Amino acid sequence: MIVTDSEQRISDICAEWREDGLTVGFVPTMGAFHRGHLSLVETAAVASDRVVVSIFINPTQFGAGEDLDKYPSTLEEDCASAESAGASAVFIPQTDAIYPAGFSTGVAVSGITQGLCGAVRPGHFDGVTTICAVLFGIVRPDLAVFGMKDAQQLAAIRRMVSDLRMGIEIVAAPIVREPDGLAMSSRNRYLSAEEREQSSLISRGLEAALSLFRAGERDCEVLRNAFLMTLKDASVLRAQYVETVDPDTMLRVETIDDRVLLAVAVFAGKTRLIDNILIKSEV
Amino acid sequence: MIVTDSEQRISDICAEWREDGLTVGFVPTMGAFHRGHLSLVETAAVASDRVVVSIFINPTQFGAGEDLDKYPSTLEEDCASAESAGASAVFIPQTDAIYPAGFSTGVAVSGITQGLCGAVRPGHFDGVTTICAVLFGIVRPDLAVFGMKDAQQLAAIRRMVSDLRMGIEIVAAPIVREPDGLAMSSRNRYLSAEEREQSSLISRGLEAALSLFRAGERDCEVLRNAFLMTLKDASVLRAQYVETVDPDTMLRVETIDDRVLLAVAVFAGKTRLIDNILIKSEV
Repeated sequence: MIVTDSEQRISDICAEWREDGLTVGFVPTMGAFHRGHLSLVETAAVASDRVVVSIFINPTQFGAGEDLDKYPSTLEEDCASAESAGASAVFIPQTDAIYPAGFSTGVAVSGITQGLCGAVRPGHFDGVTTICAVLFGIVRPDLAVFGMKDAQQLAAIRRMVSDLRMGIEIVAAPIVREPDGLAMSSRNRYLSAEEREQSSLISRGLEAALSLFRAGERDCEVLRNAFLMTLKDASVLRAQYVETVDPDTMLRVETIDDRVLLAVAVFAGKTRLIDNILIKSEV
Repeated sequence: MIVTDSEQRISDICAEWREDGLTVGFVPTMGAFHRGHLSLVETAAVASDRVVVSIFINPTQFGAGEDLDKYPSTLEEDCASAESAGASAVFIPQTDAIYPAGFSTGVAVSGITQGLCGAVRPGHFDGVTTICAVLFGIVRPDLAVFGMKDAQQLAAIRRMVSDLRMGIEIVAAPIVREPDGLAMSSRNRYLSAEEREQSSLISRGLEAALSLFRAGERDCEVLRNAFLMTLKDASVLRAQYVETVDPDTMLRVETIDDRVLLAVAVFAGKTRLIDNILIKSEV
């Protein structure tokens, strides 16, 4: 497996692969891999001939007071596990190579990024769409894989790729969970034992809402309240938002017609966790 | 020559050309061709195997009260002259095909677009960079040609293409002028006889500044004043801005070290004209 910090090198390698008729799958990450990331790499490896994984802790998607400085970095383990999961190359660029002096272009998706995490993390999604546009330009993948845990990010990237005719297939990979249901996250490592234990209630609350839907409930307020009720005795959990939205537009849904995304952000102590579930009829 | 309004068709044609090892040059325009446009097409035809010209009056780069509604449209003549100049295809998309329902992505270049035209046409350059990103995505050219008359646009596009690693060579084509010096513009047709006559003073003012520089003057205020003095007796001309800037960053320059762009916007009656000259030592 190739590991490089050179934009020119990864760009050349991908160009060679394309010239050889090989398809290139891409998984952009910030490192600190858990099984969720590895499932993205595995998904890309099934769907394409070569997989490039980027590891870049993108400063522009962190706000003031967020955890940029303490964001975990585990490069050696990450490379080893990326290789096991099927990566052909890992691209680990320096910040000042990605954003050279004079860099001044931003790519922003409006609407989709307004609510949910966008409302509480101003500028976050502009940072995400811009870095993805840059990395897509460098790698020029045939497809890129994003996790459904970051549902709003997935919707924004899909919109950008479609609007700017980037010609990249965006593949969504399901949320990977711990045995007790907690969605995998690089930030789970910050949880105290008590926070960790109570955090399993987040996915349980989402499931409670899904059960109500399957029992016939179509009023989203009832589903949102079912989530909140599940958390009500959890002393170290505090919901930041609980929203029911269309999974493509991220616009609020009040009565379920076809399907709805129940998306939540919950503080477990000082650690902010997000999770979501797509609520729809079984087919 | 191919003429199409179909994004899929132009995209397929360009892909075929690339597969055949042919390079694709691109000239994005708003139509209403004059010799300035044709020089862009000729430049592209010299530098690439196939030339695509797009004609699209992009609504998002016009501000409220600007001349979107009366912007000239001369499609038949445009296609004929594009073919004469060496175009292989003309792409004339519909507005709602370029911006389908739900379109919500913007590409913006900060800094470069702040002063000059950007200061008096808010949102204009965001519209320009976004439509160019869209058209670049559709056509995927090897190179694209832009005129130096729109110097700030050229600098913004160069920055976007570099920042987002679009892999497109941006070629700058010199300003084409009428015999009396007036820069070619689709808006020149709006000038009354008196406005048209006095408008030749714009290029004369730029030349006056260049002469002062060649005589040893390095103070940009003196050059700007030389431009304004040339216009002082022109009853129907009114300078909107007269700026001396670095041609790459569009940041103001007060003392010339190496080179400076003298860029101006002048109202001739109600018609807004822009022009500029790169002031540097002869080599």
